[in-house]
Amino acid sequence: MLKPFLRVLSPHEARAVLTGFGPLDVEETPLDEALFRVLAEPVKARHDLPSFHRSTMDGVAVRSSDTFGATETSPGLLRVVGEISMGEIHSLKLKRGEAIRIWTGGALPAGADAVVMIEQTEELDENTVEICKAVAPYENVVRKGEDFKSGETLLSGGHRLLPQDLGLLAAMGRGSVKVYRRPRVALISSGDEIVPIEQEPPPGCVRDVNRHSLSAMIREAHGTPVWMGIAPDRLNALASLLEKAMRESDVVVVSGGSSMGSRDHVIEAIQRYKDAEILVHGVSVSPGKPLILGRMGHHPVVGLPGHPVSAMVCFEQFVVPLMRRLEGEAQRRPYLHATFRAVLSRNCPSREGRTDFVRVRLQKSGDLVMAVPVPGKSGMISSMVRAHGFVRIAPDCEGLYKGDEVTVNLFAPWLEESIEEEHLSRHEAAGGSAGHLLGASEQERLSRV
Amino acid sequence: MLKPFLRVLSPHEARAVLTGFGPLDVEETPLDEALFRVLAEPVKARHDLPSFHRSTMDGVAVRSSDTFGATETSPGLLRVVGEISMGEIHSLKLKRGEAIRIWTGGALPAGADAVVMIEQTEELDENTVEICKAVAPYENVVRKGEDFKSGETLLSGGHRLLPQDLGLLAAMGRGSVKVYRRPRVALISSGDEIVPIEQEPPPGCVRDVNRHSLSAMIREAHGTPVWMGIAPDRLNALASLLEKAMRESDVVVVSGGSSMGSRDHVIEAIQRYKDAEILVHGVSVSPGKPLILGRMGHHPVVGLPGHPVSAMVCFEQFVVPLMRRLEGEAQRRPYLHATFRAVLSRNCPSREGRTDFVRVRLQKSGDLVMAVPVPGKSGMISSMVRAHGFVRIAPDCEGLYKGDEVTVNLFAPWLEESIEEEHLSRHEAAGGSAGHLLGASEQERLSRV
Repeated sequence: MLKPFLRVLSPHEARAVLTGFGPLDVEETPLDEALFRVLAEPVKARHDLPSFHRSTMDGVAVRSSDTFGATETSPGLLRVVGEISMGEIHSLKLKRGEAIRIWTGGALPAGADAVVMIEQTEELDENTVEICKAVAPYENVVRKGEDFKSGETLLSGGHRLLPQDLGLLAAMGRGSVKVYRRPRVALISSGDEIVPIEQEPPPGCVRDVNRHSLSAMIREAHGTPVWMGIAPDRLNALASLLEKAMRESDVVVVSGGSSMGSRDHVIEAIQRYKDAEILVHGVSVSPGKPLILGRMGHHPVVGLPGHPVSAMVCFEQFVVPLMRRLEGEAQRRPYLHATFRAVLSRNCPSREGRTDFVRVRLQKSGDLVMAVPVPGKSGMISSMVRAHGFVRIAPDCEGLYKGDEVTVNLFAPWLEESIEEEHLSRHEAAGGSAGHLLGASEQERLSRV
Repeated sequence: MLKPFLRVLSPHEARAVLTGFGPLDVEETPLDEALFRVLAEPVKARHDLPSFHRSTMDGVAVRSSDTFGATETSPGLLRVVGEISMGEIHSLKLKRGEAIRIWTGGALPAGADAVVMIEQTEELDENTVEICKAVAPYENVVRKGEDFKSGETLLSGGHRLLPQDLGLLAAMGRGSVKVYRRPRVALISSGDEIVPIEQEPPPGCVRDVNRHSLSAMIREAHGTPVWMGIAPDRLNALASLLEKAMRESDVVVVSGGSSMGSRDHVIEAIQRYKDAEILVHGVSVSPGKPLILGRMGHHPVVGLPGHPVSAMVCFEQFVVPLMRRLEGEAQRRPYLHATFRAVLSRNCPSREGRTDFVRVRLQKSGDLVMAVPVPGKSGMISSMVRAHGFVRIAPDCEGLYKGDEVTVNLFAPWLEESIEEEHLSRHEAAGGSAGHLLGASEQERLSRV
């Protein structure tokens, strides 16, 4: 059988290949469904906000010049000429020596340029108020156009919308926005030994883990999983499932069947398609070396390793950036998650020229947070469950030392709070003194470049 | 009018009040809908995984003792007695001097205890293989029960399920899990000046920002928003809307109408209910002081300030912890998001006794990441859009100094990658030297406790 030559690329080189795949089409979405969608247009303000000088306090609207010199011991006196109702523009124009009652969010009347907080006033009678503190012009006021001005560009295309962005769009009266379509990601599990989870695996078989962990990662990365089924180790079956998957999705992801063994059908199955190309086969990462990136027509196809941990690491490193690219997001790094600084609890050897992802669990040790490597082969899903995140070891170094300050890519931001005060062996705890945390990383000493 | 006495609590004291609200009921959910749901039961393994010794490599399964001493220059010879198909348990028992071809994921036959990688073998003929490297017992093998053992507790109740957790549950054949119900959060915007976003605001009115920013935060915190409408500044209208909201949800959130002004109807409207109690009125945070926490029957009711920024800060600090508690999550901190360390670009004064949340934008300055305070009053939604997160100033200090190392609570983990190399004024850049980043924080010098 003809085996493809395994030309191993760096993760960076492999991701550069993804730039060939463009953003999906644009659609209009109602504001209430736009959370975490990616803007396909820059958004400009159509008017000033607020459209009037707006009080930020309960109190009295005044001419600031009337309050100059007012203090608690020598308060100023102003004549109260009424009250501003919420949601109205008062017809009155405030004259010298006059004040008018106003509430938070109320519109200042003409003539007024500041608000004195209710706590700094004393009502002497119905018509007279004591001002106990001078106010500067526009004190306790959001000026017309101070939040944003008509014509100002407020959000750029390629930005993933957050709650406050939806608030801003609401303030502008935008009931819908143009966003990129969400990527549909077709998922195939491959291998004769894989059975669906509802089935009791016959001897020698295992249940399909990747379908479920990867579907969840697709959702987490804001895509839509499209489950295609389990492909047996037969070239024809896999080839026809790939073609079906391609028609029903924007990206096809196959897990398993990508190693160099003779059962490696994924490459061949992709190549059966009339206009197919293998762009990458093999990336210098661990876990995860036998990665495939190809195309069938204009559709990207990704072959992930079958080991559950390798599949998840490669998904985050290569499929997530691809999905983000398809969704038109401006992006700079291959991580889905937040980072956290910690101190390595023991030496982690690595091989030069390879990027290693070490699963770690975060544990408190005194004032320090230690990153403790979680043992476990890449076939063991439990090692991902026991870990809080991973530490990346760069290809230009032979490993990291105990006590090095490292960046942990957390699996979820809230894991930060499940860091436990756990018993560390003397051996591990000794590695991380405060001096180590705050001192320069020793990683450079290991680096050869 | 009777005004309630504003007894101001610390954020910590206010959150302690939330412990009175218990978790919602438990429901069974299919595995594919369980992402980010909170487990309501500990999960124990029902069997060993794998249930057989499983190869992690393509190669030949051997008795490790047969390979002792084998090297590239002095290889060992073994007799090849066949091949293990994927998904089968071979009936053969491997004898001394024998090897059998095996693929990644294949089951070792009886007698075999290790696998030699294909790259470290040489096929001499159909029946003879050269072994170029000795293997230790169980090398390149995941042993029976090595991933997890029958009876082992793998996940605890109160844990929010991640993709790898769903993978683990799949491996166990769990098609569904018991989780806590998602909280339904009823949302009311209050104020005569508030109009729906599709409406052109009459003079003196503004569009409803909070409905949209807070609905999105409810979704982000894994809840279901239930929109109730805009309540005018009339006690009866608000009271009846509150009661309706209470019946249709698990938490009621009202924004606006919680300040000390005479239009402050929220407290009174809550108290109209037959079995109601105001638990907190006023929290020493900025922005956000006039917070209300109460109950109507067993239902929590939260009154948020109307200013969009204050509403969002208070939502994260008080409503998110409440939602997480209702969802049964084990939790320790009031932040929804990831944290990031940066260096403050300028002095930030604060008032002792008050917790301040300063919106900041992250900017690169040489090797440092600076947290640059974003100016803007709490009524200005654009200041939240311009910021990447906030820095918390503790109540026991009068402020933070330029050059202090601070923890930024990011609004989203991916904002970390939108940190820009921006021009900082000389004044700001001078504050953050490498010495400052790595040196001890100056916050302690400011602290009075």
